[in-house]
Amino acid sequence: MKIGIVNVTGYVGVELARLLYLHPEVKLTSVSGRTSAGQKLGDVFPHLASLDLTIKTELDDVDLAFSGMPHTKSAEVVISLLERGIKVVDTSADFRLKDPGQYPEWYDFSHPSPQLLKEAVYGLTELYRPEIAQAKLVANPGCYPTGAILALAPALKNSLIEGDIIIDSKSGLSGAGRTPSLKAHFSEASDDVTAYALEGHRHLPEILQEMRLLNDDKPIAVTFIPHLVPMTRGILSTCYANLVSGKLAGGKQGEAELRELYQDFYRDEPFIRVVSFPPHTKHSWGSNTCFIHPAIDARTGKLVLISSIDNLVKGAAGGAIQNMNLMLGLPETAGLDAPAVYP
Amino acid sequence: MKIGIVNVTGYVGVELARLLYLHPEVKLTSVSGRTSAGQKLGDVFPHLASLDLTIKTELDDVDLAFSGMPHTKSAEVVISLLERGIKVVDTSADFRLKDPGQYPEWYDFSHPSPQLLKEAVYGLTELYRPEIAQAKLVANPGCYPTGAILALAPALKNSLIEGDIIIDSKSGLSGAGRTPSLKAHFSEASDDVTAYALEGHRHLPEILQEMRLLNDDKPIAVTFIPHLVPMTRGILSTCYANLVSGKLAGGKQGEAELRELYQDFYRDEPFIRVVSFPPHTKHSWGSNTCFIHPAIDARTGKLVLISSIDNLVKGAAGGAIQNMNLMLGLPETAGLDAPAVYP
Amino acid sequence: MKIGIVNVTGYVGVELARLLYLHPEVKLTSVSGRTSAGQKLGDVFPHLASLDLTIKTELDDVDLAFSGMPHTKSAEVVISLLERGIKVVDTSADFRLKDPGQYPEWYDFSHPSPQLLKEAVYGLTELYRPEIAQAKLVANPGCYPTGAILALAPALKNSLIEGDIIIDSKSGLSGAGRTPSLKAHFSEASDDVTAYALEGHRHLPEILQEMRLLNDDKPIAVTFIPHLVPMTRGILSTCYANLVSGKLAGGKQGEAELRELYQDFYRDEPFIRVVSFPPHTKHSWGSNTCFIHPAIDARTGKLVLISSIDNLVKGAAGGAIQNMNLMLGLPETAGLDAPAVYP
Amino acid sequence: MKIGIVNVTGYVGVELARLLYLHPEVKLTSVSGRTSAGQKLGDVFPHLASLDLTIKTELDDVDLAFSGMPHTKSAEVVISLLERGIKVVDTSADFRLKDPGQYPEWYDFSHPSPQLLKEAVYGLTELYRPEIAQAKLVANPGCYPTGAILALAPALKNSLIEGDIIIDSKSGLSGAGRTPSLKAHFSEASDDVTAYALEGHRHLPEILQEMRLLNDDKPIAVTFIPHLVPMTRGILSTCYANLVSGKLAGGKQGEAELRELYQDFYRDEPFIRVVSFPPHTKHSWGSNTCFIHPAIDARTGKLVLISSIDNLVKGAAGGAIQNMNLMLGLPETAGLDAPAVYP
Repeated sequence: MKIGIVNVTGYVGVELARLLYLHPEVKLTSVSGRTSAGQKLGDVFPHLASLDLTIKTELDDVDLAFSGMPHTKSAEVVISLLERGIKVVDTSADFRLKDPGQYPEWYDFSHPSPQLLKEAVYGLTELYRPEIAQAKLVANPGCYPTGAILALAPALKNSLIEGDIIIDSKSGLSGAGRTPSLKAHFSEASDDVTAYALEGHRHLPEILQEMRLLNDDKPIAVTFIPHLVPMTRGILSTCYANLVSGKLAGGKQGEAELRELYQDFYRDEPFIRVVSFPPHTKHSWGSNTCFIHPAIDARTGKLVLISSIDNLVKGAAGGAIQNMNLMLGLPETAGLDAPAVYP
Repeated sequence: MKIGIVNVTGYVGVELARLLYLHPEVKLTSVSGRTSAGQKLGDVFPHLASLDLTIKTELDDVDLAFSGMPHTKSAEVVISLLERGIKVVDTSADFRLKDPGQYPEWYDFSHPSPQLLKEAVYGLTELYRPEIAQAKLVANPGCYPTGAILALAPALKNSLIEGDIIIDSKSGLSGAGRTPSLKAHFSEASDDVTAYALEGHRHLPEILQEMRLLNDDKPIAVTFIPHLVPMTRGILSTCYANLVSGKLAGGKQGEAELRELYQDFYRDEPFIRVVSFPPHTKHSWGSNTCFIHPAIDARTGKLVLISSIDNLVKGAAGGAIQNMNLMLGLPETAGLDAPAVYP
Repeated sequence: MKIGIVNVTGYVGVELARLLYLHPEVKLTSVSGRTSAGQKLGDVFPHLASLDLTIKTELDDVDLAFSGMPHTKSAEVVISLLERGIKVVDTSADFRLKDPGQYPEWYDFSHPSPQLLKEAVYGLTELYRPEIAQAKLVANPGCYPTGAILALAPALKNSLIEGDIIIDSKSGLSGAGRTPSLKAHFSEASDDVTAYALEGHRHLPEILQEMRLLNDDKPIAVTFIPHLVPMTRGILSTCYANLVSGKLAGGKQGEAELRELYQDFYRDEPFIRVVSFPPHTKHSWGSNTCFIHPAIDARTGKLVLISSIDNLVKGAAGGAIQNMNLMLGLPETAGLDAPAVYP
Repeated sequence: MKIGIVNVTGYVGVELARLLYLHPEVKLTSVSGRTSAGQKLGDVFPHLASLDLTIKTELDDVDLAFSGMPHTKSAEVVISLLERGIKVVDTSADFRLKDPGQYPEWYDFSHPSPQLLKEAVYGLTELYRPEIAQAKLVANPGCYPTGAILALAPALKNSLIEGDIIIDSKSGLSGAGRTPSLKAHFSEASDDVTAYALEGHRHLPEILQEMRLLNDDKPIAVTFIPHLVPMTRGILSTCYANLVSGKLAGGKQGEAELRELYQDFYRDEPFIRVVSFPPHTKHSWGSNTCFIHPAIDARTGKLVLISSIDNLVKGAAGGAIQNMNLMLGLPETAGLDAPAVYP
């Protein structure tokens, strides 16, 4: 089966190409880009020299395409691909929000196809596996939502949470993309931690949408504060929530029950590891594995739910390929079994 | 005036030496160490070669001494210094907790002098300035408590907070000290973020003690989760709390009121800067300045109080010298006015 | 075919396990360790949890074993494995130096088996492919020698060099191993560059031995200065040498001739890429590819030969598996075709 | 005395402001910038908030001004300042090269004032102290030349070197300036080392000019290869040269003689430390100290001369203030005595 990548020159595009090169059952046959069109992929990205591909302005015919276009630019590309009969996994935000009315507020963008929005499946595989398998268009989740929703889903589904949720996320700099900027300038970003987007990060509506669905369609208040930390890859999300009283035993036993509940929820998931220790983002470097550590603060009874992912893999390209596998009827783990590169 | 440092070879000791070298009114005349005794300070730490001092096993007579001994080892050194008539700023935890009963639980340590515990002043200058000026023994706060308490004090004192508080702190690796360990090994710690001490960090009782005092002696539940991030210096503390309703106006105006309230609280503080943007730890690198950004999450009304410090300066050696200045009747800012080294 | 790793808990052992997990034709069936014996591999190294293996004190029977023991400790393990009829790739230095007389000087170690030294093949695949294919014992090269020899071999073989050679290498910290030390302590090593081992690094005799063989058995003077740079993986070696006059055209044309000569030398090598730009170590992160940029300083006519590798892959575990493939009659690239994880 | 900075918003300008704030005898009274004109300095750079200054489009009258303009843009600013009777330290390259004919080749720039070029003094204080004290215009050296020339000067002056010199420099990213670019983008530059400017770095003609002067006006061939390493500050220069035979004793004694010769050369220099160990760039972080380690490779007799500086301090702003002190008749070390911020 032939696969294509639109806008291969962003970090998500590059990561898709790396992972697809290893895939045993599909072949990356076409890549497009804007500024680098006409160049060999391996000339722009020396680590991909084994892929003998030239970057074109438009994608050749393929069975499935990934769009690595930025948000608000991706929608029209996706529409055109679908019209050509090509299945699409969109890694932008353009088809993630079910309510078209949210696009003007969060993306300053009037959505060109509310109908397609309805048909698009939110690509968090662990929650929407059957729908993804049938989908023509999958809207791949944002990197922050991936980590946060996976950390919170079992607790929400089991009605363990009451009141507000706080999500404190720490992301590496590759999440800021490949376009140079002052905030991602080495001398500014190294040796530094900062919070940002306190006025509301664009991944928030996506988080709220999915939290609500996990919560029996009841809205939940979420405070989400992302932070930048000086590493290239990885997101650690530390989520805080109030435990509904009486749901779990007290003390150590309660935490064991919580972990068991999480392990049950994710029992057959190939890419989720529920662990008994706080995970390191480094343990996911380059891999599609999400580590989750569900804990209870012994002194306050507060839930502390921690997840760790590689933002470019499980949080973007890896999750997207996981969806592609389902959409093409391939084994879900095909091409995604490489352990993290550690240390 | 003559100053001494016990255990100068730890990171706090080294930082004290650096800052005292620049101090216009006191002179560092004696330093002691354990394993490096007999060596020149500048041979162990080339950046301190301008200080012509030899590391001894015991401190000479001085007017004031800093103890850079580790916790549980510092108490007896401090007692002996006080007996020699030397004022002491202890940078360990040995005199921070007012209740001697907490030491066995948190430090596996039976306190040798509950009487001195009573006399010791908790050295967060902004809260205990008059007491510090009169003290013979100051217990310098931990690095995490410094950032967290400074972020929360104005809100607590103004009764803005109800319910639990969450403190999510991100620390550089120098907080782990100079003794090599796997968790602070470069290949393990670089490109990584992790939470740790979920079972209860030793700085928690200190935070609880001070929060309670700030809260009209009413206890507060605090969930405190420290994280390690790959930088040498800096702590960013993101604190979350519920705002008592009706205390502030809604929306942008409420946030402006909050900031004004913080600016009032810290109006005359030379080392606190209340700012309208999320601070970067890098803006404090090497300096005694604490940046605080008080914010309100517009969608949930939650308080988001962020502070940034250099853990080795305001969070240790700088705060300690600020206290020394008060104890010796010197200008509080003497020797501490260097801006951060940025970038 | 069954494969084992002795001392799997060092960084080379861990990296071998990661790469072998992906190998399509062999199976890692046994791992041994010293301090971690009895634990599951995935409990010590969470990124390897997919390998369901318990660390033992001794290796089970396998077809081929890697020794990840430290130098001077590896020899006896290797001897014992060979006696059990197991082929061995030794990643330590214990069988690299052909002259047993060098071991006392460089490793303070009297070699237990000069006979085996003779039989052992130096495992730089690009130079000793036929011998490796026949070998029972391969001594895998050091990380610095791998990069340096690959950079210099084509020039030496083509008699382009006269006079001394200077090798200025910059290595990431994983080369210092997994045992914590002050020099590899995060707070010391981050934001820092330093030269070390000016009195003679242990990889020097190995470099000299191979340079001489490449140079028609004529000795060459080599000044080799390694440096530590704040990254986990990677070695960049910048090699300087005098070009024999008249061998190449002047100016840009000479450099083109040089590059062509290098491309010829490495034409069929699957893991060597001769490139027209200075390589980044990051382009090799996690992969077995060595990038080489041969250049001529236009103003002085000096050869500037730069190579870039991942010290843990091509410089250790990857090169070792490349040798294993040959020794077992497998395709040389089996299990080693993953592109670098970039960025 | 009043001091000004033109283009304060670059990294050199910011560092000048930081250091001048601490200066006991001069006052920074005026700063200008291009894009940030009209803003408070402390709003653009929070660590400088203590300096109550507004960035203007043009400098007020001052006694001495620093130009932090980029090369080819600085010359006209400098000329205009001199016409206003203001002494100038230019941190750009515009007055470094004595031969105006080199500007078109290296900077694509026709020099507007060959006469001023003649009058300008090259601001390497250790070599031109008397001339600087008399100068109206000082051309501050580039960061690489500062480290390289200081490492080589004693050997050249003592005629210890014959044949070519190789300078292999490793620089932190702040040397690339504050303008975002792909090469200084965090995700590209972290975990990476690369060589660059193999076709000839712009600091080379400056190095050649000064080397020749140190070598009795005889030209020397220099191969200079700069590298980028993932840290913000610091340059380590490892210089290789052939030792004239018979000049020094053999073995350890020769190295001791060499070190003594270096210590003599720099005996009264307040900012040069000749040391018996390879220096760490981190030991200079934020300070004006240059560490130099002169060594002899025992096996080849080659000179290995290593220097370490903070590129923004001794390599730019600190060296510039050292010159300012001389030009204004102040103590040379005024404002520059802060030890490095370590670790």
